[in-house]
Amino acid sequence: MFFETHLELLQAAAEANRTRTAWTGYAPIAPPDAAQSDALVGAYDGATLALSSPTNSVITADEVSPYTGKALNVSYGAPSVDEALEGAAATAAALRDAAVELRVGVCLEALHRIHHRGQEFAAVTSHTTGQSLNMACSGSGTNALDRGLEAVAMAWSAMARVPENVTWQQRFGKSNVTLRKRFRTRPLGTALVVACASFPAWNAYPAILANLATGNPVLVKPHPRSVLATALAVGVMREVLAEAQLPVDAVQLVVDTAAAPVAAKLATSPEVRIVDFTGSPTFGSWLERNVPNTLVFTETAGVNTVVLDSVSDLSEAMRTLAGGLSLFSGQMCTTPQNIYIPDAGVRTDDGVIARDDVIAALLSAIDDLAGAPRRAGAVCGALQSEATLHSVTALADAAEVDGTLLRRPVPYAHPDYPQARAVTPLVIRVDPRRGETLPDGEQFGPVAFLVDAADTASAVEHATASVRSHGAISSYLYCTDDAVVDEVADAYADAGASLSANLVSSMPMQFAAAYSDYHVTGLNPAGNATLTDESFISGRFRIVQDRRQVEGE
Amino acid sequence: MFFETHLELLQAAAEANRTRTAWTGYAPIAPPDAAQSDALVGAYDGATLALSSPTNSVITADEVSPYTGKALNVSYGAPSVDEALEGAAATAAALRDAAVELRVGVCLEALHRIHHRGQEFAAVTSHTTGQSLNMACSGSGTNALDRGLEAVAMAWSAMARVPENVTWQQRFGKSNVTLRKRFRTRPLGTALVVACASFPAWNAYPAILANLATGNPVLVKPHPRSVLATALAVGVMREVLAEAQLPVDAVQLVVDTAAAPVAAKLATSPEVRIVDFTGSPTFGSWLERNVPNTLVFTETAGVNTVVLDSVSDLSEAMRTLAGGLSLFSGQMCTTPQNIYIPDAGVRTDDGVIARDDVIAALLSAIDDLAGAPRRAGAVCGALQSEATLHSVTALADAAEVDGTLLRRPVPYAHPDYPQARAVTPLVIRVDPRRGETLPDGEQFGPVAFLVDAADTASAVEHATASVRSHGAISSYLYCTDDAVVDEVADAYADAGASLSANLVSSMPMQFAAAYSDYHVTGLNPAGNATLTDESFISGRFRIVQDRRQVEGE
Repeated sequence: MFFETHLELLQAAAEANRTRTAWTGYAPIAPPDAAQSDALVGAYDGATLALSSPTNSVITADEVSPYTGKALNVSYGAPSVDEALEGAAATAAALRDAAVELRVGVCLEALHRIHHRGQEFAAVTSHTTGQSLNMACSGSGTNALDRGLEAVAMAWSAMARVPENVTWQQRFGKSNVTLRKRFRTRPLGTALVVACASFPAWNAYPAILANLATGNPVLVKPHPRSVLATALAVGVMREVLAEAQLPVDAVQLVVDTAAAPVAAKLATSPEVRIVDFTGSPTFGSWLERNVPNTLVFTETAGVNTVVLDSVSDLSEAMRTLAGGLSLFSGQMCTTPQNIYIPDAGVRTDDGVIARDDVIAALLSAIDDLAGAPRRAGAVCGALQSEATLHSVTALADAAEVDGTLLRRPVPYAHPDYPQARAVTPLVIRVDPRRGETLPDGEQFGPVAFLVDAADTASAVEHATASVRSHGAISSYLYCTDDAVVDEVADAYADAGASLSANLVSSMPMQFAAAYSDYHVTGLNPAGNATLTDESFISGRFRIVQDRRQVEGE
Repeated sequence: MFFETHLELLQAAAEANRTRTAWTGYAPIAPPDAAQSDALVGAYDGATLALSSPTNSVITADEVSPYTGKALNVSYGAPSVDEALEGAAATAAALRDAAVELRVGVCLEALHRIHHRGQEFAAVTSHTTGQSLNMACSGSGTNALDRGLEAVAMAWSAMARVPENVTWQQRFGKSNVTLRKRFRTRPLGTALVVACASFPAWNAYPAILANLATGNPVLVKPHPRSVLATALAVGVMREVLAEAQLPVDAVQLVVDTAAAPVAAKLATSPEVRIVDFTGSPTFGSWLERNVPNTLVFTETAGVNTVVLDSVSDLSEAMRTLAGGLSLFSGQMCTTPQNIYIPDAGVRTDDGVIARDDVIAALLSAIDDLAGAPRRAGAVCGALQSEATLHSVTALADAAEVDGTLLRRPVPYAHPDYPQARAVTPLVIRVDPRRGETLPDGEQFGPVAFLVDAADTASAVEHATASVRSHGAISSYLYCTDDAVVDEVADAYADAGASLSANLVSSMPMQFAAAYSDYHVTGLNPAGNATLTDESFISGRFRIVQDRRQVEGE
């Protein structure tokens, strides 16, 4: 029934995926205000959520709001590795034998209900990740739901390309042989989805739902300091599974602690056949290399570059870039980090602007944003973890000593939460030709490096070398000559990276559109999981067939 | 131009794949006679084939005809691992930047030319693998070409599902944002294809051509004792690449020796991103576990079971089964091995036949085949390797001691080649309830175990347990009750195996039809590479995109 209810939506999503035009399946979610948000989260204070197969173990997660500094005080049933695996195994047959439409219908209905509770999810996301309520309603709200729906649509389309049966007839020697054949899609096995602390929904929804749609039981392991939003989503899925008369443990929450992490143990269990991971390059790379005979999908991090060649309107471009650096305090995998400025400056409609003036314009745009508390609150949100604040501060201190510091990561005044872990971007300037070095990989948080480059060509050369070494998820170019954009796009493509050119608008530069933008190419070290291409889907199910001979014509 | 020439064929193949109806792209190849075959192979006596990037190393392969016992005396350029990898890398940019149609056209033209030289390929295949000339024209001829075309069609369809570009427009706040996006498919990287000694074309063509179509340079490593057929195919591909003005080293032959094998070193080279392997479970499993961050496709071996429940006509079924056991002397991955017969015997239209009588009928059918030299020659061919003859003989000797031997693997008189390594099936009977054990995995060559089972249900239970432990590529059932066939198909499906029921005809029971039959499920230990599902294709290419903002409406 869920399938029929949402069939039109599903078909529209599949069509959007095919054409890659702009489309969304979910109406915008109006952000709650701070007081509403606090109340929505406060409702879980002291609660214990049991979202797995039975266990005696309970963990009160170390979840502290980046806005209020207060502990969320929510406890979770915490199954052991064996309990979780056994719980998943117990659901395998029922989930496998369920009709594709039933499983897909569960996915669609779960997305629908999460959307319906959008404000609650946004509040919880905000108080665990530090996302602003706006972003929690969009990036972790409708966009995440759209990415989830996209994966369901891709899985459904892929399974639909396998015909259910055929009557096959061929001549052998003097006789016709007729075979009646059936083809059935089958899940690969228990799946593990590891979500990250700062953006738990965007990558996890596609992975969880692609698994569920194709019939694989799912263990969802959130970051130990950012559990509640994921727990609520798992709760919705279990509720819908139950209504569909499918076993609820087909999706389980597995909570661990920073002191006793379970992801590696789960991932290397022979029962686990699929792992989806979003998080650190270190663990992602470890998974890619140490979990044999398992489908491993990773999205980790890269160093996203910006090459400034020429723009129509410098201040417009710098406003966009300042917004890009500030958005969710740089805690997005698509945040720009290394910004190349040629020695000759940047060409504009008003003539060439010298590098120092370009830099001044960027710093001024950042300061403008930082100085408008309500806008800063909506754009920057807060830092998910104290560790990020420490690392950004340490980087600023070191740059001050080096003489490369342009702007400290000063706090901004959050309009609603004076205690918020709220900072604005750190900006550092380096010239590799003077021996000043860039960090060896992504600097998580609001950190930008302005890189002096001889010219656009050498900037592209340096940036694409960085892509090859450190990976990249999003790369950016400002250039008014379309032929040069083509050349630079080729250079990035050859390094295995996608490129966005000349983004100056109300759209955040790092916005990636579900159904249209392929997120992560799989061709550089930033990960191998593309949202959403067919390689993200196809291995999650296989095909068994039977054929029986029948009388010929 | 090649693309246009073969476009109708390609479209028909893609359509056959979609519907999975019976179709072939290649007219039957008339087998040459023995004298013609000898002459075709003799033409290469003393030749040196250079089919790689330049190298000073030459290997005279240890290729000895299973029919004549004479060395083929063919030498091959033998690039080192570094030479081969550097040669591949040097072609990467040109191959990547070539239009999809150009690469696909090369694949189609290569298949066309191999087909055109079908008799020569058959002769060479026969004198290296031991396949009969009939089988070399069909199984390693048209069927292998069809499987290759199928993979090309699947790759082409998958790439075609990625739109080349879109104009994307979405409202953000008060303004419309318009992005012009391009999506480009990109190869993953250098690919290694390891072929097996006895069936070098059937699995290798799909792997080589799927790689080439998607733009990955390919290193083709044949078995050191079965090189020439693969070398000729690589030669054709290089010839067509040259005519298409693509670098010939996009497909290279890498020859090694049994004493100094290179497959593991190549597979674990970081430059190699894709490995396709057909061969032993030991090495296949090693690859699956020790080649991280690489797409690994394996087809190894399983224990193929037959459950005898009921048949219309026993002698017809036993003739089919005798043919299945004898075909290419059991050296096919689809050959039945363990045949379960219930205590109560087998029900037929003429009443129940007792187990001993069923066994007698099977042995008699084997003897009939073995006693007709020309037919035996066409069906059985010869054993590819002396090692197989030794292992089968040793197994027979041990069974004789055990008292489980029913039929020795006696030679048959080959009508054309008195020296041929030509044997007929060994048959052993065991009752696991008496503690008699079945071997721990596939016994390569013409070996059948007749297994006493309490009843059909316990036979299915034992057989599906075997699938779970040892894997299976093809499984067989004889049962006249369609409802029971459904149940047994479910049991095999739950074990991750496909099932063929009631095959009694001129079609060899282990025949797998390109475009229709999914070969290897990927759900049991017999391998993970399905010919041809989307998971065999999708990861071989990825997508880079660029998007640039343009003026709104």
